[in-house]
Amino acid sequence: MGEFELIRRYFASGGPSREDIALGIGDDCALLRAPTDGQQLAVSIDTLVEGTHFLPGTRADYLAQRLIGAAVSDLAAMAARPAWFTLALTLPEADPHWLDLFSRALAERAAELDIVLVGGDTTRGPLTLSVQVHGWVTPERALKRSGARDGDLVLVSGTLGDSRGGLQTLLDDEPDQPSNAYLRRRFYRPEPRIGLAQALAPYANSGIDISDGLLADLGHIARSSGLGASVDPLLLPLSDELIASVGEDRARQWALSGGEDFELCLTAPADALTICLQLAAERGVRLTCVGHMQPGDDVLLQEDGVSVQLDRAGYDHFGETA
Amino acid sequence: MGEFELIRRYFASGGPSREDIALGIGDDCALLRAPTDGQQLAVSIDTLVEGTHFLPGTRADYLAQRLIGAAVSDLAAMAARPAWFTLALTLPEADPHWLDLFSRALAERAAELDIVLVGGDTTRGPLTLSVQVHGWVTPERALKRSGARDGDLVLVSGTLGDSRGGLQTLLDDEPDQPSNAYLRRRFYRPEPRIGLAQALAPYANSGIDISDGLLADLGHIARSSGLGASVDPLLLPLSDELIASVGEDRARQWALSGGEDFELCLTAPADALTICLQLAAERGVRLTCVGHMQPGDDVLLQEDGVSVQLDRAGYDHFGETA
Repeated sequence: MGEFELIRRYFASGGPSREDIALGIGDDCALLRAPTDGQQLAVSIDTLVEGTHFLPGTRADYLAQRLIGAAVSDLAAMAARPAWFTLALTLPEADPHWLDLFSRALAERAAELDIVLVGGDTTRGPLTLSVQVHGWVTPERALKRSGARDGDLVLVSGTLGDSRGGLQTLLDDEPDQPSNAYLRRRFYRPEPRIGLAQALAPYANSGIDISDGLLADLGHIARSSGLGASVDPLLLPLSDELIASVGEDRARQWALSGGEDFELCLTAPADALTICLQLAAERGVRLTCVGHMQPGDDVLLQEDGVSVQLDRAGYDHFGETA
Repeated sequence: MGEFELIRRYFASGGPSREDIALGIGDDCALLRAPTDGQQLAVSIDTLVEGTHFLPGTRADYLAQRLIGAAVSDLAAMAARPAWFTLALTLPEADPHWLDLFSRALAERAAELDIVLVGGDTTRGPLTLSVQVHGWVTPERALKRSGARDGDLVLVSGTLGDSRGGLQTLLDDEPDQPSNAYLRRRFYRPEPRIGLAQALAPYANSGIDISDGLLADLGHIARSSGLGASVDPLLLPLSDELIASVGEDRARQWALSGGEDFELCLTAPADALTICLQLAAERGVRLTCVGHMQPGDDVLLQEDGVSVQLDRAGYDHFGETA
């Protein structure tokens, strides 16, 4: 199977499209219509590498879900509406079974996230997948990292540490079983908080998605905003499944530094807490206040009234990991 | 050196920017201002993999030039104006010397091509580089593959086969010498025909950049346009350097199927030939008529009045190569 045949068979098969796509897969470039009302284009690129981000032999459909979910989460973190994506797929071989599983899962998950594949590049080499996502956001609604203010509350969506828990069940080579299904799903199938971010954006001052761990990502907000932050570990939202799997202490540690939960971390003034909680509840998403922004230049853990300074630990591809 | 430090040190160092960048490197997404006059966004993603697209040990500055040149060539092929790009960089290790050489060459070449880095992802793994380019084009000026008409002349810019010739000197492990400098430069430093494409777009019916070889790429135009094409090998523009290096027969073969020259292949009606040649001459770029579009479903070679059917040979990552 040649490269062009591969693209035609697996990726250019139609599927749901969008009216703002003037020219999709199959030319030198995709041609896309921009809104003319002053919205800004939000773009982000994300890569998954076999052996670095996922275990060799990971199912192709899981990879597809993780890839597109993690990438769209960056759009959600800016409160942008997803629109289009491109895919750079490097494969050791053109395995029809792998490609079939991958392309179907990618198309299905992309449709759920309202984002459409408009182009790509397929090359031979060690398994590496890059996705670039494009979305649109009204400038004054964009959730930057740099907007946090002293006294803002720190809010996080969902539960934290689950993805790290799911990864552990894989590292431990546990067989698939009902008790680890939830955690593995959290690892393989990130749920970008697109709707929640757009709903909360008018009330929030800053935002990020939790990809490197809460401490690291809140650290990005703090540094970008010229502030410090305080987090109370006892307030961290933990799932029953994670606690059952690894106990409360480890669950709390992973909630702080596990990474790849792709939940939102927002900061908002205290007087916006009620409306934020209400908007989240309307969407069926848990939203928890875990701390606040304060003067300083670090993220502190505050427990029983005592502050303990920690490293801004999190996953860092070229440094030491926590 | 951590991932964040790496990005800050090598890629977020400022450099020439653009007024349409609202938010550059360092947040979850870049935020970019779109023109409000109905121009369309042109996007394309390109990947280079060590061992597939370049030899192990290739100099980092050469890689940077090749990567950005090849990617911007896709914008040129649509007659789009370059604007921004993102970079997904997968590296086996964070080697400061490599990164310094790479990032400087990338910034320098990007500035020459008037395109600015707005985001990226840096991961650990086998050396793989993906670039996504973004540009803008007025819809009626976009050079699609599908617009060729029966009787259109086939025009190509520059000379063909040089890049394949440069690659051969590397495969043959020739030392650097003045006699192979030109061909190697053509391989390592593609020159996207941005200005020429925009100048010719009002007169051309279709266009593509020659990345897979003239026969393969003209084949894409022919298939997309529901036509065939005829090429006269004796008309192919060959450089003196390529003929001196490999002789005229092989030069002609590589001009047909060598690939990665990143020259333009356009089709235009015969009555536009004079103005096209004049516009190219004004820009100091050679433009040569090498054939014409005709009814049929294949690209034929026509020499001494006799047509010979050839495979649509060219580089194809998952198929047999020519």
